[in-house]
Amino acid sequence: MRDISLLQDYLVEKNFSQIFVLLDENTSKHCLPLLLEKVDEISDKLATLLEIPSGEQSKTLQTVEDLCRSLLESNADRNSVLISLGGGVVTDIGGFVASVYKRGIQNINLPTSLLAMIDASLGGKTGVNLAGVKNAVGCFNKETISFLDTEFLQSLDKRHIFNGLAEMLKTFLVADKNFAVKLLDKTDFSFIETDFIQACIHIKEDIVAKDFLDKGERKKLNFGHTLAHALEAYFLDKGDTLLHGEAVANGMHFALNLSEKHLAFPCEEKEMINAFLEKHFNILPLKDILPDLLPYLLNDKKNADNKINFVLLKDIGEAIVSIPFEAEELLTL
Amino acid sequence: MRDISLLQDYLVEKNFSQIFVLLDENTSKHCLPLLLEKVDEISDKLATLLEIPSGEQSKTLQTVEDLCRSLLESNADRNSVLISLGGGVVTDIGGFVASVYKRGIQNINLPTSLLAMIDASLGGKTGVNLAGVKNAVGCFNKETISFLDTEFLQSLDKRHIFNGLAEMLKTFLVADKNFAVKLLDKTDFSFIETDFIQACIHIKEDIVAKDFLDKGERKKLNFGHTLAHALEAYFLDKGDTLLHGEAVANGMHFALNLSEKHLAFPCEEKEMINAFLEKHFNILPLKDILPDLLPYLLNDKKNADNKINFVLLKDIGEAIVSIPFEAEELLTL
Repeated sequence: MRDISLLQDYLVEKNFSQIFVLLDENTSKHCLPLLLEKVDEISDKLATLLEIPSGEQSKTLQTVEDLCRSLLESNADRNSVLISLGGGVVTDIGGFVASVYKRGIQNINLPTSLLAMIDASLGGKTGVNLAGVKNAVGCFNKETISFLDTEFLQSLDKRHIFNGLAEMLKTFLVADKNFAVKLLDKTDFSFIETDFIQACIHIKEDIVAKDFLDKGERKKLNFGHTLAHALEAYFLDKGDTLLHGEAVANGMHFALNLSEKHLAFPCEEKEMINAFLEKHFNILPLKDILPDLLPYLLNDKKNADNKINFVLLKDIGEAIVSIPFEAEELLTL
Repeated sequence: MRDISLLQDYLVEKNFSQIFVLLDENTSKHCLPLLLEKVDEISDKLATLLEIPSGEQSKTLQTVEDLCRSLLESNADRNSVLISLGGGVVTDIGGFVASVYKRGIQNINLPTSLLAMIDASLGGKTGVNLAGVKNAVGCFNKETISFLDTEFLQSLDKRHIFNGLAEMLKTFLVADKNFAVKLLDKTDFSFIETDFIQACIHIKEDIVAKDFLDKGERKKLNFGHTLAHALEAYFLDKGDTLLHGEAVANGMHFALNLSEKHLAFPCEEKEMINAFLEKHFNILPLKDILPDLLPYLLNDKKNADNKINFVLLKDIGEAIVSIPFEAEELLTL
């Protein structure tokens, strides 16, 4: 990921016909002023602002249609650029709109949350939800460029910092034992060292470079995500809020139990990680809600042949992808 | 493009988890029986049929959403295949749905119209209309595979044969003088020789292979299309029907006049081609409707910097792309 200091030059060099900035009411208030101060091309060129309501509820095809309509009304041509300023919801929607508007305009991500910096804004996955299925409609955008500005993190509350830390832990658990242990040992979370952020970004970028279309290696980044996506969809349907990282924390907790049982993942390591998760996240009593989650689990994009696929660990840093389970098997755990 | 006889083996080899066939009421009646007879994998595996109303009106994001919802309801996973059986409307919609459902499933085109065989089903362009703009939302689908069955042409009426012939003429005009002259010399159109169809497909496939993302060479295939897309959107808004090839015939007629004026396209050749177009198509009195077309012309995907871009010819087989005109300039022609 490039540093934010390079964005000004990039925009000058590309000489886009129009600049559009997609944001929500939070990033409009907390992040836009910072951006306008740092990047003259955006303030001087009178970028057009496109604001959507914050939150998962915005991730619909209707939002995509509304945004494409706004771009048409502004006569946006194929040499326009869409800059997504926000967390994962904004970058997921913005990336999809940029992918399909007039069959594709340039997409730039400016992630403002820790979660988006280390995960959502990287690797070109875009999408919106449909019928309770997370990212049921979307695409891979190869042309996405992301710029990093850790100053945006200053506007995040503790809950949203941990939202990102869950994904960071996931990335280290599937790919880097050293950093995983360092993170698990950390006690003060008021400040996240840039080292952690950069390491996490590099791991994800490496994996994506090897397997952009998510057909092999990249799937291991879905550790904890089978259950997480089902939980998120379930909460969304109930009208409750569960952040992605909180869902992933629950998903990893569950997947570690499965890993211990099916791949002999070391018990002490599992205890240590699950204790960390239980300390920092609300780990839900899965036994009670698993039956309700099954329809969502069966609709996961990773599934094939009506089985539910999980990514499990043999050890920290050693992931095995696409392990299929029957629905009934999960209920008896 | 592969021959239809290879489809059965292809499906067996790929062993898709589910087969979906997208069609409209016409292809359901006239083409599906033929397909079921020829391809056991489709009849035996109980493919799921997804039917949409025929015609340009179906090309909306709402249709895309409805189809994605149907796929979700059938538990379609990423190893499913969507086969589009129809003309350009069906293949444009089907290609887009296959591109975005769960971030992409395999797409197969079985073009049933002459137009779709030589043009729409080739090259991976997909899309739907929005706010009166043709294909305003869509993407390029690299994974599309098309199979050719000229037997489908037997169900086409004369109007739809000429609908395809306009695009065929366009392809030859921008790339192959010999075939262009042969087609212009033809008098009996009750039968279209496979030679013409194959030649046209090869030209398009060659051009697309050189420039899949439509950034250079491929743009010449847009000869006649700047005006055509505006005409189609204008007729769509009025609730009238104008077939794509009929719009392209009008667009070529107009672009040839521009070509003569701006690139010294030979006058006799222009007369010959325009006489052919006037004989076989309803060439509209453009002077009267051009002012109404301007808003549509200004929204063309090919435009940049608020100018209207045309593809023009220096000679038959020699196209120059992206020639910009001011709106006022066109009105004075």
